[in-house]
Amino acid sequence: MRADARLRRPRSGSTLFRNRARRKCLNIPCGPKPFLFRSGVLSESSPILVFGHLCPDTDSVISALAAAELLNGRGIPAEAAMPGPLTPESAFVLRRFSLPCPPRVDSAAGRRVALVDFSNAGQGPADLREADIAAVFDHHRCDGDIASRAPELWLAPVACCATLLAGLFRFYDVVLPPGLAGGMLCAILSDTSLFKSSAATPQDLRAAEDLARRAGVADIAALGADLLTAKADISGCTMRELVLRDFKDFTMNGRIVGVGQLEMPDITPVEPLKGGLLAACAELAAEGRHSVMLAVTDLGREGSLILAASPRPDLFELAFGRPLHGGEAWIAGMISRKSDMVRPLRKAFESLGRNPD
Amino acid sequence: MRADARLRRPRSGSTLFRNRARRKCLNIPCGPKPFLFRSGVLSESSPILVFGHLCPDTDSVISALAAAELLNGRGIPAEAAMPGPLTPESAFVLRRFSLPCPPRVDSAAGRRVALVDFSNAGQGPADLREADIAAVFDHHRCDGDIASRAPELWLAPVACCATLLAGLFRFYDVVLPPGLAGGMLCAILSDTSLFKSSAATPQDLRAAEDLARRAGVADIAALGADLLTAKADISGCTMRELVLRDFKDFTMNGRIVGVGQLEMPDITPVEPLKGGLLAACAELAAEGRHSVMLAVTDLGREGSLILAASPRPDLFELAFGRPLHGGEAWIAGMISRKSDMVRPLRKAFESLGRNPD
Repeated sequence: MRADARLRRPRSGSTLFRNRARRKCLNIPCGPKPFLFRSGVLSESSPILVFGHLCPDTDSVISALAAAELLNGRGIPAEAAMPGPLTPESAFVLRRFSLPCPPRVDSAAGRRVALVDFSNAGQGPADLREADIAAVFDHHRCDGDIASRAPELWLAPVACCATLLAGLFRFYDVVLPPGLAGGMLCAILSDTSLFKSSAATPQDLRAAEDLARRAGVADIAALGADLLTAKADISGCTMRELVLRDFKDFTMNGRIVGVGQLEMPDITPVEPLKGGLLAACAELAAEGRHSVMLAVTDLGREGSLILAASPRPDLFELAFGRPLHGGEAWIAGMISRKSDMVRPLRKAFESLGRNPD
Repeated sequence: MRADARLRRPRSGSTLFRNRARRKCLNIPCGPKPFLFRSGVLSESSPILVFGHLCPDTDSVISALAAAELLNGRGIPAEAAMPGPLTPESAFVLRRFSLPCPPRVDSAAGRRVALVDFSNAGQGPADLREADIAAVFDHHRCDGDIASRAPELWLAPVACCATLLAGLFRFYDVVLPPGLAGGMLCAILSDTSLFKSSAATPQDLRAAEDLARRAGVADIAALGADLLTAKADISGCTMRELVLRDFKDFTMNGRIVGVGQLEMPDITPVEPLKGGLLAACAELAAEGRHSVMLAVTDLGREGSLILAASPRPDLFELAFGRPLHGGEAWIAGMISRKSDMVRPLRKAFESLGRNPD
């Protein structure tokens, strides 16, 4: 019991003493024993490895940095990591706001970890189930049994994990450095496709305004344009790298379905690559997935060209209301992977029932 | 798809238009189609019934009112309810801040619900598993499979659910009425035993300060004293009612263990009732529980008298480091049910392994 009580004491004494002083100001009667504030149940061990999903997008990389900063600010030692290579967009963001690149991590077994931007075991390192899940910060629906093992869980229906984290910096009264605020602003602009995505919520917009102020970004639209240019950079990449750039596996009615997305102001440069991208989708599908789809999103025309490798193209027609011709279809209005792609696709897969297909 | 898009539009148009205007101020390029903000995935159906655990304490009653207010403020119709009778403390709080008493609810089957202050199916109405869980706001460890079904989950390691909700009013930019702020302040004072509990965190204290300001409460200590007086009112109650006043069932290593708590500035008036209270514990244990414990907490002496009806009193000795004599023991320093009672008791039960006992 005594040892436990000592462990609960925050590592940095400053919060403790500031709060004892505050309590005195409130005229709350003090007990005879020293008043122990806990900075959270996580303080019981350390350090925590914080990372997002495989094929990390900007939100995953930046939210890992942000969550590590938040945990450290609460007196809980944590360090950011990254289970995949940096995309050109994320590289631009780190450079633009002088942020450190989180080191690569490919294994979680035996580590104490915090997850950002995902809570689905299939989207993390293969040995994630052997990790001790200390916290989850996510903006997706809770999927599987990983999240429920965490003593703290923040799963909010917003478009970007950085929006949730921005709110938590206020909740925990932790100072948000300007550079990190700039990175988080970029994560929101990226995840909402500059607020064109139907997944965007008023909370995302409010967080973006606040983060821009903290980061000293006067022209959000100009930053968004630079971000899009970086995101659309496909030079020097293999077809497989392009499909995997922003790629996630989803379990839909027992089948693994991979969904990648490439966002561009104008998708004309991708037209000649369609055959190669479709072949890369088929290659990834052959590696143990039921289907693989790449959405090449045209932010100017506000829609997506989908390329799908699947033994059941009819499911894609059922989900999106248009038949595939040679594995491809143009879907107007489709921008958000979460709302416009995964949700209807999941429903279509549910129509399969439990039968093998 | 079109019908879905319409559903996503917030019910009150004001947020939508305010945000479109904001977006223009940000100079973010507008698409050709109207810009749809979603107020959250919950807006897809209505209304949501919001309630806390069985034998509701002040935090459960007030957090249900607060979460319903928050959801309504987000454009998601919700109404507070209460799965048990009002305690004298909660009655005092509702009266003191002119808050409505949530109606009684004993069934959740087929309803869309939001849970506050618990996420363990065993602590809710018997048919909770037949409900559609829309959201969970809790400050306890996620227990069981109920919470992971919710599209939004807020599980924070703080001492009081009202602390979490106070943060969410800021996150969602929803106005917090002064009366409700006063009620939430009381919930925090109650759950932290006027900040004497080891479960209290800096977030709880900060929320209390802010809520006091909003509620116009100048003297928090005086309010706390009134609250304690109401909490300690045991007049006209049966022994069973006293054990059940603030009572929760926990599943510990497969066994159901009920833990009740009575908090008083001075427990002298309870001394003559010990035999009756122990008999009520035994009666509740005989109704399908492995063990039942009542902690009578003396906030002046900062400790608890425990009364336990159990076939394995040795587990209580293992948990709390003192033997039970005639089913009772005084444990100095024990105030928080969550940290000081349930946590060590759970560990002691885990030592049983899977063997029947």
